[in-house]
Amino acid sequence: MEIYLDNSATTRTFPVVREIMMQAMAEDFGNPSSLHRKGVEAERYVRQAQEQAARSLKVDPKEILFTSGGTESNNLAILGTALAAGRQGKHLVTTAVEHPSVSETMRYLEEQGFSVTWLPVDSQGRVAPEAVEEAVTPETILVSVMAVNNEIGTREPVEEIGPRIKAKNPRCLFHVDAVQGFGKYRLRPRAARIDLLSVSAHKIHGPKGIGFLYVRDGVRLHPIVFGGGQQHGLRSGTENVPGIAGLGAAVEEVYRDYEARTDHLYVCKARLAEGLRKLPDVRVNGPEGREGAPHIVSASFAGIRSEVLLHALEEKGIYVSAGSACSSHHPGVSSTLAAIGLDKKWLEGTLRFSMSLDTTEEEVDAVLAALAELLPFLRRFTRR
Amino acid sequence: MEIYLDNSATTRTFPVVREIMMQAMAEDFGNPSSLHRKGVEAERYVRQAQEQAARSLKVDPKEILFTSGGTESNNLAILGTALAAGRQGKHLVTTAVEHPSVSETMRYLEEQGFSVTWLPVDSQGRVAPEAVEEAVTPETILVSVMAVNNEIGTREPVEEIGPRIKAKNPRCLFHVDAVQGFGKYRLRPRAARIDLLSVSAHKIHGPKGIGFLYVRDGVRLHPIVFGGGQQHGLRSGTENVPGIAGLGAAVEEVYRDYEARTDHLYVCKARLAEGLRKLPDVRVNGPEGREGAPHIVSASFAGIRSEVLLHALEEKGIYVSAGSACSSHHPGVSSTLAAIGLDKKWLEGTLRFSMSLDTTEEEVDAVLAALAELLPFLRRFTRR
Repeated sequence: MEIYLDNSATTRTFPVVREIMMQAMAEDFGNPSSLHRKGVEAERYVRQAQEQAARSLKVDPKEILFTSGGTESNNLAILGTALAAGRQGKHLVTTAVEHPSVSETMRYLEEQGFSVTWLPVDSQGRVAPEAVEEAVTPETILVSVMAVNNEIGTREPVEEIGPRIKAKNPRCLFHVDAVQGFGKYRLRPRAARIDLLSVSAHKIHGPKGIGFLYVRDGVRLHPIVFGGGQQHGLRSGTENVPGIAGLGAAVEEVYRDYEARTDHLYVCKARLAEGLRKLPDVRVNGPEGREGAPHIVSASFAGIRSEVLLHALEEKGIYVSAGSACSSHHPGVSSTLAAIGLDKKWLEGTLRFSMSLDTTEEEVDAVLAALAELLPFLRRFTRR
Repeated sequence: MEIYLDNSATTRTFPVVREIMMQAMAEDFGNPSSLHRKGVEAERYVRQAQEQAARSLKVDPKEILFTSGGTESNNLAILGTALAAGRQGKHLVTTAVEHPSVSETMRYLEEQGFSVTWLPVDSQGRVAPEAVEEAVTPETILVSVMAVNNEIGTREPVEEIGPRIKAKNPRCLFHVDAVQGFGKYRLRPRAARIDLLSVSAHKIHGPKGIGFLYVRDGVRLHPIVFGGGQQHGLRSGTENVPGIAGLGAAVEEVYRDYEARTDHLYVCKARLAEGLRKLPDVRVNGPEGREGAPHIVSASFAGIRSEVLLHALEEKGIYVSAGSACSSHHPGVSSTLAAIGLDKKWLEGTLRFSMSLDTTEEEVDAVLAALAELLPFLRRFTRR
């Protein structure tokens, strides 16, 4: 038995994704920059994926820029804005719970002489739209707020934030890191006054190594990678045609039967959260039910270190993530869990369960049964 | 009939490349940062590819850093050195014939207050090692010279250049853009005193969207993409595991039967060059035979614009590149052809034929026959 509940880390590719990638690697393998038919064929895959991505956001295909993934999309949005800003200003606004690809990029800009306002969040991980508005000044060039928190599933109020930013400073750009929100919500950059929006393919059953950045028509970005001038000079380098094609297929597939699939995820989420709460000395973090994202459940287990529980579950074929660390590269305490004021008692025993379209209620029950069996044993063992 | 002679633009993936990528996308799809088995399995693909890449250069696996391709590798080598240099100096040295991913990055640094020495090349496209040595000063932080020119196949004397740089200024780093040279030559960074070396997978029958940068142990680079701290913080972002695995497989495959395959390419090259020279008003550019790379033949056709000839060949199922333009994004005149002093008469009628391991002598003969048929007709037509 294998139960994969680490879909916020990465997902298994859809079969349609692999199919179109094979076609683009074995047959239509041309370079879109080539002037002959092989190049034109390759370019067609790129155009199609642009249309698929644009349709999912109700934007224009020419506003879709392909990158090597969510991290590069976030870097390009933030650094590209800073490099293009000139004398417009040197101030940025973000929250205390962003992914490192946003927060570390902000820190780099701080070293370069920019100033960054880091906004706190409430106990559910939510930033106040009023606080964002207040932080924006005439010198603010960019506000960056994530759509969905990757650790506890908080949906940030980006739809409320956008109009408030623009009312205060129409020239200030609004970037949304939608890596965890895309595919889970219908995002509408135009209505939300979002200028830049980052998406990663491998979080939505697409390939690794590819993502896109929505760049509203009229937004001036400076490139951060220089070369042959591909993608209107904004992102040089031969386009990753198979990856782009796979991304397009994943975007289309992930929004097929969107309502039914989302309902199913919320059923699984509620079942998991309810079961977890029934276990002794366990708390569920982040917003409940439809207040939060459909796929993420964060839970803290008193008296057990998350790595110990993670590996015990792994022995049973259940794969989850240690919620107190972003990844194996950052063994420190999570900024999100600290930002929501989680007590030390819970902090070190947090797991993240992240579901996919394939997750079943039976799998949820199996996970709960495994935890019910493991917890007393592990607690006795670790307390000795 | 299809004859693909645009392998310097991109190549068809090897079947072994597609196989391992499917495995990494359908089965072992984990995130290397995950602490559980799925993560460990994914990490294993990354390690194996590091070993394959390292073996091909006789370097250490930990000196291999994965990027999104040749363009990012070149950008990271140059910008990463400049950002890390601090007070060591603000001077760089390169040649007049580099790929835009080097030359445009250098130009960006010029805008940022760095100074760049652009060295000329001789009529064969070759830079003089003595000139490089002379250009290096105590303030020089980096010399960047390509291994093989992408337009006319010149092999630059990187093995002579490295020791000369180090003799003059031991702290100056040496970067080699080996995108067109890797897989065609056995490159030995240690013997050549190369500190940084860029490789792209899709030029060697690997996937698009992935490449690597050899970074000699001890070299201090500043990252140009910020985030989760993957790859020792030098290149954040979830590793493109399928792409990395495909790159590793391509590296191994492209150096299998290396001698025999290279001999075969030189036979094809000689046959093509000889046939071209027999055609009226045609000249072959760049070094002959083993003086140049085995896979590239550049030829100029008086009285015909390259695009016209390219499309006429395309009608016959023969795919080549317009040698006077790097790609569809840069319709201007090539810097390499201008740098070797090619007369205007030839400049606008240049094609690049670039072969692969699959190219046959029969294909070469078919291309020559097609040209013999097309040239008189097109010349009559265009001259009217």
